[in-house]
Amino acid sequence: MSAPRIGITMGDPAGIGPEIILKAAAALRPRLAAGELGLVVIGSARTFAATAAALGLANPLMPAVAAKDGAPALVDIDDGADAITPGSVSAAAGRLAYRAIAEGVRLAMAGEIAGICTGPISKDALNQAGHHYSGHTELLADLTGARDSVMMLAHGNMRVSHVTTHVALRKVPERLTPERLRRVVHLTREALGHLGIASPRIAVAALNPHGGEGGLFGTEDIEVSAPTIAALRAEGYDVSGPVPGDTVFVRLRAGQFDAVVAMYHDQGHIPVKLLGFEVDPTTGAWNALSGVNVTLGLPIIRTSVDHGTAFDIAGKGTASERSLLEAIDFAALLSRRRSTP
Amino acid sequence: MSAPRIGITMGDPAGIGPEIILKAAAALRPRLAAGELGLVVIGSARTFAATAAALGLANPLMPAVAAKDGAPALVDIDDGADAITPGSVSAAAGRLAYRAIAEGVRLAMAGEIAGICTGPISKDALNQAGHHYSGHTELLADLTGARDSVMMLAHGNMRVSHVTTHVALRKVPERLTPERLRRVVHLTREALGHLGIASPRIAVAALNPHGGEGGLFGTEDIEVSAPTIAALRAEGYDVSGPVPGDTVFVRLRAGQFDAVVAMYHDQGHIPVKLLGFEVDPTTGAWNALSGVNVTLGLPIIRTSVDHGTAFDIAGKGTASERSLLEAIDFAALLSRRRSTP
Repeated sequence: MSAPRIGITMGDPAGIGPEIILKAAAALRPRLAAGELGLVVIGSARTFAATAAALGLANPLMPAVAAKDGAPALVDIDDGADAITPGSVSAAAGRLAYRAIAEGVRLAMAGEIAGICTGPISKDALNQAGHHYSGHTELLADLTGARDSVMMLAHGNMRVSHVTTHVALRKVPERLTPERLRRVVHLTREALGHLGIASPRIAVAALNPHGGEGGLFGTEDIEVSAPTIAALRAEGYDVSGPVPGDTVFVRLRAGQFDAVVAMYHDQGHIPVKLLGFEVDPTTGAWNALSGVNVTLGLPIIRTSVDHGTAFDIAGKGTASERSLLEAIDFAALLSRRRSTP
Repeated sequence: MSAPRIGITMGDPAGIGPEIILKAAAALRPRLAAGELGLVVIGSARTFAATAAALGLANPLMPAVAAKDGAPALVDIDDGADAITPGSVSAAAGRLAYRAIAEGVRLAMAGEIAGICTGPISKDALNQAGHHYSGHTELLADLTGARDSVMMLAHGNMRVSHVTTHVALRKVPERLTPERLRRVVHLTREALGHLGIASPRIAVAALNPHGGEGGLFGTEDIEVSAPTIAALRAEGYDVSGPVPGDTVFVRLRAGQFDAVVAMYHDQGHIPVKLLGFEVDPTTGAWNALSGVNVTLGLPIIRTSVDHGTAFDIAGKGTASERSLLEAIDFAALLSRRRSTP
């Protein structure tokens, strides 16, 4: 089996993406040289050169046609327009971010890379560039033609997939349907299988507090989730719930489940980020950003860092590449299992 | 200043309440003997005697009229009806739980105790006994005539108060009003002052993911929370937000705020319980239940354990008194500050 070649899209060039990619490429040099992993970075060559110079970082990226001996390859998507100012939202940056993603998807769909790992983008910048998406997930669905997809966050054994994500809280209850819940549980089980978990145990979080307390605080858990879970169990899924949201993540952390299906963005994001993120009490800097964002249900493998562009620290050299390294590992793991018969 | 006398209501006698009260009373003996604290337990004398005998625990509770030398006093509210079976829901147990709370409130309103710390109740049992409340909070509001109240959870420096609690997720957005948000921030600041925090910093969590992303995923954060926060700041409150839910608790843990105002039950409960609760991976037993539940806005001080009746382990002797000890301490702290000019 050959080493998986993972594509990395630069993200917004004015954010911390270029910096953490250079740092991750440096950290991975031994594994790249040993042939355990291949990296194909898709981004702006000018921006990587400028970032390396400004921050005093090595720039090991080689033009893709010339890369050899395990060196990380660079596919340059720069359009030669205005230079990028770190920390600043611009249409030029949004355009480059979009081009990197589009090219990454093309390479993955063509089988030239095993999957993509995406750097953080700015929705404002994307919008200014004329690309109107509420996030990576929607953009990737569009580019790959996927009919739907599911966001999973992972940090250690905290694996949480979401029935809904970027939608007003007010609209969450109507988005919980038997079909959607069934799809999320199915894709979650499939992903856990790719991670090498033989008999995945999945818990479905309740939508309402205490699962609705017998219907006193909402009926969706009784009317939608419970019968769907019962049907899935009858089909052989090891799925439990609805389990009240305020205890299900404690039980996940303790290893009672392999993943939780959360009903909405904050329900799933709060526990994973609380365990994976750290902020410096005095400076306010985010000094540890661990965790991976995985998109399930696409025709390609896609993982992502679990944090944003961090414009406030862009260009300062203090950004941590930890989440990106985890995201690369996760993509490599998924691709090995997925390609194994 | 005399030592605060804290009332403890037994909770559902078939749950772990009687067991953890006996354990807490034993643990507190040195402080009681030293006159630093007084305890008045309100519950069923028969149940405490039976629990002590079944589990081999000491029973230091003395009839209130006879208690001396700092011994914990017992106000017996038993009605002589059927004996209680641990772990089983019954109208008889619900009746006793209600009687203990009603008597505790009476004693606190009369100034005979400094406040109450409540053991866990079963809403099912309360209902079977004809008392129709969705929880302690609603029952206490009724008994004290409070026009509204606010639930705060606390575990270490994680202090989270709630705009809504026991309500269907579907109804949360309409419950977020300027008046309610203002009331919650005000009571939160007042409580932080009672805890001895001189200039409390409060963050308001966003209702929608990413705070609604400029209105793309819901407008309540822009239309209700932001102007209310601006008005409160103009009045001298140190209040920030709306801060996205998935990062505000990381920043709270790091000490950037003294409390967070959460919009709904799970948003506030998930982070506090994730840090305060532990479950045994193999047995599934809840082996650490830390954290305190405080009701703000009542005419009396009221704190509570942060866990339920745990019927599954009732009568087994394995329940932890940790959360109860924290709740007693919290009530004592609030009462000292509140009574100091």
